[in-house]
Amino acid sequence: MTETEATSIDLEIIAHGPKSGAKAETRLWLRMLSTTKLMTSEIRRRLRAEFGATLPQFDLMAQLYRETDGLRLGELSKRTMVTNGNITGLVERLEADGMVKRVTPDGDRRVTVARLTDEGKALFATMAAAHEAWLCDMMADVDQDMIASLWREIGMVKGSASNHLSGAADE
Amino acid sequence: MTETEATSIDLEIIAHGPKSGAKAETRLWLRMLSTTKLMTSEIRRRLRAEFGATLPQFDLMAQLYRETDGLRLGELSKRTMVTNGNITGLVERLEADGMVKRVTPDGDRRVTVARLTDEGKALFATMAAAHEAWLCDMMADVDQDMIASLWREIGMVKGSASNHLSGAADE
Repeated sequence: MTETEATSIDLEIIAHGPKSGAKAETRLWLRMLSTTKLMTSEIRRRLRAEFGATLPQFDLMAQLYRETDGLRLGELSKRTMVTNGNITGLVERLEADGMVKRVTPDGDRRVTVARLTDEGKALFATMAAAHEAWLCDMMADVDQDMIASLWREIGMVKGSASNHLSGAADE
Repeated sequence: MTETEATSIDLEIIAHGPKSGAKAETRLWLRMLSTTKLMTSEIRRRLRAEFGATLPQFDLMAQLYRETDGLRLGELSKRTMVTNGNITGLVERLEADGMVKRVTPDGDRRVTVARLTDEGKALFATMAAAHEAWLCDMMADVDQDMIASLWREIGMVKGSASNHLSGAADE
């Protein structure tokens, strides 16, 4: 990942300026974006501080945790935000740490899949529990009813966006 | 940017699985994340299709559009999600296209700032209008009251997260 983190800067204000004639949709979009960026930065920081881990490592382990048969690197790349070029290094690093192993299933030598080791599974379970606790911590000032209604309403935004994609099929 | 786009895959489902004991906060987080990723992918696709532009180019021009005095590259890097290493190439490319110029203000040779050219300003204004129209299109199925209430309520999530950062000062 070549992103930097700009946690001290509020992207909503930067992107938009304090006064603006932007439409409600644009204001909502910038707020969604700045909120997810703020929270993502905090998650990156806590992963590093508490586990010495990066967000791409966490995301990759999350995928493997759910796929007990393992995943090919190309599929892992698709399911995370990591390019094919970077996924190999990421897997090699986790393999060196004993968290991941690469295996050739079913005797087909052309196929290699990555799987979590038992140690990797145990570590991810611990990280996932911490990740959930961080989210609860970050949303501590929001009452449960609002969390539930936000989940439903953001689902409507997501559904609307899905209905109005310009050409998802050609991506 | 080294991110790939996984538009055909719903990250909320992948990350989470169809059944789960996750808390409401985690479910909301995954929905926020998958929604912004879906919409970001669509914006990337439309920028490329309609303007031959990338999202980092758009973000960089957005910053310069608001800062008529220009910005130093380090500051530009902070305000976008582009690393210092990549910002130079991005600026050089936009300069070659005639959208950006680098100038030395106030006779201080040690300082170089990037500014939009008139052509760059005109292009960005066109792109920003298109960007707003895409957002309205993507949110077309969501009524205006809900857009307004989502803006307020996501503001509460953002405020809560801001109140519970672990160590923003040391980033």
